[in-house]
Amino acid sequence: MAYQYPAPLQKLISELSRLPGLGPKAAQRLAFYLLTAPEDQAADLAEALSAVRRSVHSCPVCGNFTDAERCSICSDPGRDSSLLCIVENVADIISMERTRSFNGVYHVLGGAISPLDGVGPERLNLKTLGQRLKSGRIREVIMATNPTVEGEATALYLAKKIQPLGIRISRIAHGMPVGGNLAYADEATLALAISGRQEITVQEDSRPEKN
Amino acid sequence: MAYQYPAPLQKLISELSRLPGLGPKAAQRLAFYLLTAPEDQAADLAEALSAVRRSVHSCPVCGNFTDAERCSICSDPGRDSSLLCIVENVADIISMERTRSFNGVYHVLGGAISPLDGVGPERLNLKTLGQRLKSGRIREVIMATNPTVEGEATALYLAKKIQPLGIRISRIAHGMPVGGNLAYADEATLALAISGRQEITVQEDSRPEKN
Repeated sequence: MAYQYPAPLQKLISELSRLPGLGPKAAQRLAFYLLTAPEDQAADLAEALSAVRRSVHSCPVCGNFTDAERCSICSDPGRDSSLLCIVENVADIISMERTRSFNGVYHVLGGAISPLDGVGPERLNLKTLGQRLKSGRIREVIMATNPTVEGEATALYLAKKIQPLGIRISRIAHGMPVGGNLAYADEATLALAISGRQEITVQEDSRPEKN
Repeated sequence: MAYQYPAPLQKLISELSRLPGLGPKAAQRLAFYLLTAPEDQAADLAEALSAVRRSVHSCPVCGNFTDAERCSICSDPGRDSSLLCIVENVADIISMERTRSFNGVYHVLGGAISPLDGVGPERLNLKTLGQRLKSGRIREVIMATNPTVEGEATALYLAKKIQPLGIRISRIAHGMPVGGNLAYADEATLALAISGRQEITVQEDSRPEKN
């Protein structure tokens, strides 16, 4: 039989290999590191891992992660709870928040409809979404699913469901990314940038001021 | 203040970010995965991590990892303990063993001499190496440090130290990797492949047999 690492080390390598994005070599490197790292670093990681499992759960309202009863966004009275942004994943909330351009609340679907991967609408976090929409307190829904085939299909599916409720539905804009280059833009993005073009209004009083 | 994840989640992300080869995005992805993974998978990982720290240590003879008093190679009576292979890291032992071409024992240096990184000989696992060499039971040392500037320097440094003991010293061969292509070989490797060329002896009785 080929030489093998001691069983506990082999076990750690195989547990690390199960994590997404870690191949066998990366898992081995990590295991070696964790084995020889300062005692407190390994203990801190183990403690952080179990603390997360103990205290963090999904917000029952929106699906964001929280260690309180509701997430800090849902429980913030300063946010406009009539403006609902639908995202695929919790990580998307951070991206949205970083823009500082949105002061509404969120709903996390936990994915997107993808028939090829066997993910239908029943796998998404839609029950509480239905309740929120029917409460009569939402005036606009912004579809911020990803600009992918699955994200578009999900946005369309939800829009059809929401339409009869008489709530305004919008979709985040497609177009050229800031700092992008037309020469390198893919044709689908550029086509959407053209069809979604916005009128430039030069105001009468915006001429350079005289000194 | 910008929106932040719940403190325990933030803590796990920051602990994961400290691991080698994991950037902030990868750490976040892993933390999300660990938070939502099946309960037993997170528990298995935490348990594997603490089991490794509890039971795996360096073999006091060679520096390999072991969960016993000595590592399974040092304690194997079927191995030739007079043939000592010096490697930089524990992972190199697995590579050597995979060849099934070596039946001696190992000594793990725990790195290579690298003045630029401030790693001098005093940082390497040399104390027990000296004891092993002076025991009079080693007849040959194979230098299997990496074919890098640091590995070569380390091999040369050790060879100078070992020479006076009258022990045979060898170095693993440099040359073209199997399946390689001369057109893509770097000149340093090819130069070493030429200077290290081996004579081909065609035996008299190796002519094609008559049918």
